[in-house]
Amino acid sequence: MKEQGIELAVSTVIFALRPHPRSGETALWLPLVRRIREPHVGRWALPGGPLQCDEELSASARHTLERTTGLTSNYLEQLYSFGAPDRSPQRVVSIVYWALVRADEAARAIDGENVEWFLADEVPELAFDHNTIVTYALNRLRGKITYSPIARFFLSPEFTLAELRAVHEAVLRKKIDPANFRRQALATKTLVPTGTVLTGTSHRPPALYRFQVNPTPERLRP
Amino acid sequence: MKEQGIELAVSTVIFALRPHPRSGETALWLPLVRRIREPHVGRWALPGGPLQCDEELSASARHTLERTTGLTSNYLEQLYSFGAPDRSPQRVVSIVYWALVRADEAARAIDGENVEWFLADEVPELAFDHNTIVTYALNRLRGKITYSPIARFFLSPEFTLAELRAVHEAVLRKKIDPANFRRQALATKTLVPTGTVLTGTSHRPPALYRFQVNPTPERLRP
Repeated sequence: MKEQGIELAVSTVIFALRPHPRSGETALWLPLVRRIREPHVGRWALPGGPLQCDEELSASARHTLERTTGLTSNYLEQLYSFGAPDRSPQRVVSIVYWALVRADEAARAIDGENVEWFLADEVPELAFDHNTIVTYALNRLRGKITYSPIARFFLSPEFTLAELRAVHEAVLRKKIDPANFRRQALATKTLVPTGTVLTGTSHRPPALYRFQVNPTPERLRP
Repeated sequence: MKEQGIELAVSTVIFALRPHPRSGETALWLPLVRRIREPHVGRWALPGGPLQCDEELSASARHTLERTTGLTSNYLEQLYSFGAPDRSPQRVVSIVYWALVRADEAARAIDGENVEWFLADEVPELAFDHNTIVTYALNRLRGKITYSPIARFFLSPEFTLAELRAVHEAVLRKKIDPANFRRQALATKTLVPTGTVLTGTSHRPPALYRFQVNPTPERLRP
């Protein structure tokens, strides 16, 4: 086999919901890693690294998730491969995955070395073409939440409609009318009332829902 | 940079519509290339090859399309990257694209060396994991034709509703009721009547349509 001189890397865009530091409302965050080597030393970059010779692509992405956040994968899907010849001084093709982390898990996240979380829409100027990749991942997430029950990967197994709406509002970055949202969410037929209510609230405890189990795992769908 | 020992290849699944050899109806075909080297010498495989050091990923896929069919790209999109460690004796990660070719272009296709076209649902046992990749591409095409106007890449710029229906029938491999199809197709609002009719037919010449120009090129969407 001839030496191609092309390095193969796997990077992972990890999305989680955490409170916004100013408004306190649910907002979309992602962890970035400060580069300790040239090129772009000191800049923030997506977590990832070279693909190991005997490693599955998705295993590499999962290891990145664990190393960066201390968390295991809840939702992990291949996003896209970026391979422009000029995206790095040495030719690197990056196969990018994206992962979604539940709110309760995100709260338990242990930051790895040189890791910091940023609001997804306020990331600084990143190394390489990583701003383009973040934008691509945001567009995928925002597209997919409108036609698939992907919001469930941000939620506990049982949730209120207000919690589900907060996920949509955080991802789509807009206020959604509660009555319209309720009607549309229930019309999709993917929500099942658990028959129980949220306890510990003051008055009129809200009903809990869960998503219907999906017969085809999301990651097997093209 | 350390030697990873991983080769990077780009392969392309090329879909075109041609008449079925038995029924004469429009059917989905794809070209395959007979392997002249080990591993899997003599087996059919998807066209493609190693990524060149200075080559864009999509350029590599486009060159494969040209080399295999003599055609230039009409619709070309990244499909998925396949990288299981055991998919080849030497570790190869394949970034796969898919291309759609218009019927009138497919008729002009010049087959490259060792190239043969197969009915998409009757491909033989292929080299490596290429049967899995073909199935993945077929699922993507079949999914996408139901929610996007991707059928236009199989058609001339102006077409009749019967021609559009034939594309859907060939891709989805099922008969579609003409009246239902007409109603649903027109309801999408993406079809514009050209105001002209198909000439050269016997009685009641059918109206011609075109697709509304899409403000966002398909390939820029995640």
